[in-house]
Amino acid sequence: EKLSDASAALVDKGGHRHFMAKEIYEQPEVIGHTLSSFIDPITSKVRLPGKGIDFRGIDRLTMSACGTAYFAGLIAKYWFEEWARLPVEIDIASELRYRHVPYPEKGVALFISQSGETADTLAALRDAREHGQTIAALVNVPESTIAREADALFPTHAGPEIGVASTKAFTCQLASLAAVAIAAGVQRGHLDEKEEKRLVEGLLGMPRHMSEALAMAGEVEAIAADLAKARDVLYLGRGISFPMALEGALKLKEISYIHAEGYAAGELKHGPIALIDENVPVIVVAPDDALFDKTISNMHEVMARGGKCMLISSEKGIRAAGRSGDLWASLAVPECDPLLAPLLYAIPIQLLAYHTAVAKGTDVDQPRNLAKSVTVE
Amino acid sequence: EKLSDASAALVDKGGHRHFMAKEIYEQPEVIGHTLSSFIDPITSKVRLPGKGIDFRGIDRLTMSACGTAYFAGLIAKYWFEEWARLPVEIDIASELRYRHVPYPEKGVALFISQSGETADTLAALRDAREHGQTIAALVNVPESTIAREADALFPTHAGPEIGVASTKAFTCQLASLAAVAIAAGVQRGHLDEKEEKRLVEGLLGMPRHMSEALAMAGEVEAIAADLAKARDVLYLGRGISFPMALEGALKLKEISYIHAEGYAAGELKHGPIALIDENVPVIVVAPDDALFDKTISNMHEVMARGGKCMLISSEKGIRAAGRSGDLWASLAVPECDPLLAPLLYAIPIQLLAYHTAVAKGTDVDQPRNLAKSVTVE
Repeated sequence: EKLSDASAALVDKGGHRHFMAKEIYEQPEVIGHTLSSFIDPITSKVRLPGKGIDFRGIDRLTMSACGTAYFAGLIAKYWFEEWARLPVEIDIASELRYRHVPYPEKGVALFISQSGETADTLAALRDAREHGQTIAALVNVPESTIAREADALFPTHAGPEIGVASTKAFTCQLASLAAVAIAAGVQRGHLDEKEEKRLVEGLLGMPRHMSEALAMAGEVEAIAADLAKARDVLYLGRGISFPMALEGALKLKEISYIHAEGYAAGELKHGPIALIDENVPVIVVAPDDALFDKTISNMHEVMARGGKCMLISSEKGIRAAGRSGDLWASLAVPECDPLLAPLLYAIPIQLLAYHTAVAKGTDVDQPRNLAKSVTVE
Repeated sequence: EKLSDASAALVDKGGHRHFMAKEIYEQPEVIGHTLSSFIDPITSKVRLPGKGIDFRGIDRLTMSACGTAYFAGLIAKYWFEEWARLPVEIDIASELRYRHVPYPEKGVALFISQSGETADTLAALRDAREHGQTIAALVNVPESTIAREADALFPTHAGPEIGVASTKAFTCQLASLAAVAIAAGVQRGHLDEKEEKRLVEGLLGMPRHMSEALAMAGEVEAIAADLAKARDVLYLGRGISFPMALEGALKLKEISYIHAEGYAAGELKHGPIALIDENVPVIVVAPDDALFDKTISNMHEVMARGGKCMLISSEKGIRAAGRSGDLWASLAVPECDPLLAPLLYAIPIQLLAYHTAVAKGTDVDQPRNLAKSVTVE
């Protein structure tokens, strides 16, 4: 983390009150930079930087990371499975490194880390190499140890991230991972040119959509003043929005010290619904996708038990959810390809954590007990 | 769930204040019954009931379940990987059924459900069958839909479970899963006779160890009086104890309405440690295994930040953790094979949730908002 520390002195807050706010607002720009490493602007086709990875001959991809980067990996699992029909085994690095993993012969293992120095992720990488895996690394610091030890390097161009709670590094990881998964889909013959083009254009449209989404900051600030009074919060999501629920909870937890927990919406009835009363707000992440109705049905169950619900969806989704008069709050995100939604839904989730922490008066950029990158176990 | 409801009327509390207490105390006996379906008492060898499953030709096992049964599956993943070198893909049933899963050709999929009627688990089973998977079911009600639709049935003999929070059904699932994983290890040539015998004897010793562990109830009751004051609790574990941390948190959440969350101990520094203060007790599940020192080091970080820690380990572990004077509490569990520890560590985890709920005066057997088995989505 020496690199980030050094750069911290060279980076200012650009008129924002905190580095975290600055980094949230930089996202449209840095996502654009990151995508330019992966997309040929002339052909609208994905091309992996450097040597790339041959995904054709493998029957399983192993992924690992810690914290927010792990959630980026969970999201990418859906992409690799959907676009490339490539099964993904993903685990937290501090778990993977100590498991007796039955690695596939000549498999590929992909590690994600903002700093490229995360101790557990590096150890997991070395373990995978010892078991004959080809190593891909997705990092924000190209001079880092993880980058140097990889066979293939997939860069993010988030620039220095100073706020301890990751924002732009996370969405840049998502952008890179989406591009890599599309490339894998093309290589493996599961995406034709037309489908590749559609997805690439969806990705290229993200910076603009993210800028639109950032306009909701005023609305979020008003909701955050209320959310700041909560001591416990649940985030719910299904499918690709389940990891977003986990990320939303982690973000809030890290900087506001509110005990937020992410849950797969379908698991609600298997336990966490017992927690629900008017003091535990429930934040529902439900893009207008194939799982929308299922998630909304779970939200209605929460509301029927007196729970206070906030819905993050498209305007169409919020209207379709009905009973919106009974919602405690809602935030409307621009419509986009459902599988790319996590890039966009990151914005309200980050803004919500940020403004709640500001309302609580915590040290947003340097929350208690946390370090920017965890270079020890 | 008609069967369980019907049997409820026929089952009494056997001198206990709640069904849940009765069911916790029945565990040594029902684990014995369950093991007798899987183990030949003459040879101390595992033999799968009925047609069994041929694990030799497969390169991946898919598993799915909901709630506590899902945690049993997470634990079994370690067993299948360690004993049979069989990679396991496991997902929550409400997630798996809606994912576009790249199933292996002619794979095996194993579904776990106490009632055998869990709607999401049944739907996931049918999806797996449509994708050509051989179906194994591990259920407590052999007449159930999931049992009837399976190619191979692995029974648990927990008897009727009336308390909504699963206890004896969970440990019986673990016992069955351990036996199936040992059988898979023998079939695939990764366990020799000697190793099989050692593991089988470890399993057969469990009822006795569990009886010993049940003797800690008085101690647990005293700790629970204090834990009942908490509004938020973290459970930490590593490796095979990570799912136990998840299960401990779920159990406490379900019946005491305390917001408990389970975390992989290595992820602590990537976020949740920000929550730590004297008001958030941390319960550390750390059997005396290869990961013990790592977990204890995480516990010491919590203590250094003013966190109130309780250690569940063997007596040897509690001594080795040192600074035990600084521990808020500890519970000593008999020593056992580290990989079989979840069966035994279930006891303090269940007793703790039970006595905390009793101290809080909640409706232990019928917690608010929850149904015994979730037969709707």
